[in-house]
Amino acid sequence: MLKLRKPYLLYLGDAVQKSDVKTAYGLRDWCREDVLGEWAHSAARVTLGLARLSPREAAGNQAGSMVIGVAPTGGVLPERWLDDLEAGIDAGLDIVSGLHTRLGSFPRLVQAAGRSGSQLIDVRHSSHAFAVASGRKRTGKRVLTVGTDCALGKKYTALALTQSLRAKGAAASFRATGQTGIMIAGEGIAIDAVISDFIAGAAEQLSPDNAPEHWDVIEGQGALFHPAYAAVTLGLLHGSQPDAIVLCHNPERLTIEDYPGFKIPPLPEAIETYLSAGRLTNRAIRCVGVSINSSSLSTEEWHQYRRCVHEELGLPVCDPLRGGVDDLAAALLDH
Amino acid sequence: MLKLRKPYLLYLGDAVQKSDVKTAYGLRDWCREDVLGEWAHSAARVTLGLARLSPREAAGNQAGSMVIGVAPTGGVLPERWLDDLEAGIDAGLDIVSGLHTRLGSFPRLVQAAGRSGSQLIDVRHSSHAFAVASGRKRTGKRVLTVGTDCALGKKYTALALTQSLRAKGAAASFRATGQTGIMIAGEGIAIDAVISDFIAGAAEQLSPDNAPEHWDVIEGQGALFHPAYAAVTLGLLHGSQPDAIVLCHNPERLTIEDYPGFKIPPLPEAIETYLSAGRLTNRAIRCVGVSINSSSLSTEEWHQYRRCVHEELGLPVCDPLRGGVDDLAAALLDH
Repeated sequence: MLKLRKPYLLYLGDAVQKSDVKTAYGLRDWCREDVLGEWAHSAARVTLGLARLSPREAAGNQAGSMVIGVAPTGGVLPERWLDDLEAGIDAGLDIVSGLHTRLGSFPRLVQAAGRSGSQLIDVRHSSHAFAVASGRKRTGKRVLTVGTDCALGKKYTALALTQSLRAKGAAASFRATGQTGIMIAGEGIAIDAVISDFIAGAAEQLSPDNAPEHWDVIEGQGALFHPAYAAVTLGLLHGSQPDAIVLCHNPERLTIEDYPGFKIPPLPEAIETYLSAGRLTNRAIRCVGVSINSSSLSTEEWHQYRRCVHEELGLPVCDPLRGGVDDLAAALLDH
Repeated sequence: MLKLRKPYLLYLGDAVQKSDVKTAYGLRDWCREDVLGEWAHSAARVTLGLARLSPREAAGNQAGSMVIGVAPTGGVLPERWLDDLEAGIDAGLDIVSGLHTRLGSFPRLVQAAGRSGSQLIDVRHSSHAFAVASGRKRTGKRVLTVGTDCALGKKYTALALTQSLRAKGAAASFRATGQTGIMIAGEGIAIDAVISDFIAGAAEQLSPDNAPEHWDVIEGQGALFHPAYAAVTLGLLHGSQPDAIVLCHNPERLTIEDYPGFKIPPLPEAIETYLSAGRLTNRAIRCVGVSINSSSLSTEEWHQYRRCVHEELGLPVCDPLRGGVDDLAAALLDH
């Protein structure tokens, strides 16, 4: 399992639009206490409103890592950032990247890391070896966020649910399976980068035995209805052995994003598909509610939609950004 | 996709038992015309009854590759074979291995390959990059062998079905997804070695567009009921977009091998699980029959079992080793 050194200095590159630094915003919003400040190339036109610290100043404040919080087009790391990254390495910081380009592909950075002892960490790529899944039931409780598609709030819902469980006095850990999630948690497994044979095994390792009343809140990936990524979703579901799932959905989405030939099924059918697949490793799996990304709906439309879905499913229906997910946390603890 | 240079010289190492050289037997039996002969360490006590050729003699007969047809305990390549492998390389042969140990981990072999221009090919490991699946429907017809568990005849059934289709005058290609299958076909993709994100994409590449009446007979992997490998099975199923499946089963097997807590479902339920998952990428998917590994049954038991299953499912029931799979091929061509 990947482990990152906190606290972080967030690097914004030469971003000119806020949408380029979504990762940095995620870190600022979800692990504010682990973020010391921000740093950027002189050409940048974006700020998160954090303290502006050079790598050396951040290192002087005990920073552990400089995290690339900006996504350039195509995920390619541009050469013009190398001076800044090398300055981070020279200051003794680890460099953490979620980009396609491997940090180790730049000899300058490798040499600098050799001098300072810093680590170059590519969160997107996995060099870890995992065991084949055992199928053994683990102690503790687990909830997995699943979706009708990719990119509609599975990470956000899991983070919000972890907070809500803790606010209710429950012990809960967010378990990250994607790049931004791993940066927020400081550890995790980029599950879609694991060799297929070991995916369920990696998911087992992600949420090990725990105290009987402890909740692992596991970040879901992909969707069982996705023609490219369903295998990732199934391996994560089987290895997670969740006691509960939360289904994430965006009512605006009628077909799988970028796959117009693939319809998103009605919610009751989607839930039954997940429960049916999940029963293989946990007979008692249940759906505790639905998390909606309702950004396309007016307030009135949202209330109406929420009432409809609640009546259809008989389950709590939340939008983390419109009233939070306390009802989902309550449903988890109720059982 | 991996491509191997035929014909082969089969290397038997220092095997003392026939069960150690199962891979070599598979190659002898399924691609006899591509096998020039055998070679072994002086300590070997096993022969396939083929011409005994040194690597140099084999190269003189236009051999392309020396294939390691023996599986040592733990899949580790022993140092004592290196002289023989180096002789193969020096003779200009590629070396093909399905073992865990990478050929490239022996500097002697790497240096020798550098001298001769030979390739060191580890069939178990995948260094190929694949595209994300598109979900696009491809031309031509496809049948996938699926199973109630691992290791009960999916490769054997696919090979037998390819032969039977050809014997009936149909155009058919065996598409290999595992190590021995790849060696037999001379090409293929070790599907369980693919990064999870790309597994359906790799399966799409394995059986590209083809003539409308051409059958790709795709070697299945794993099982949807397997707590460790179901993700591999699902990704292969989705990317293959099969028009038809053949369910492989061993009636002796009541639970998943090595996973006693996981029951094998009744055959009608198993078939419906596969069809239901397969409909995502091919609405018209159907099951054309069942392939039984009946080695544990007496002749009388087999006839009785076969009648029972046929009555229950209304589908042809074959054992490739007891009467062949012509009924399955006929069912494929019938439609």
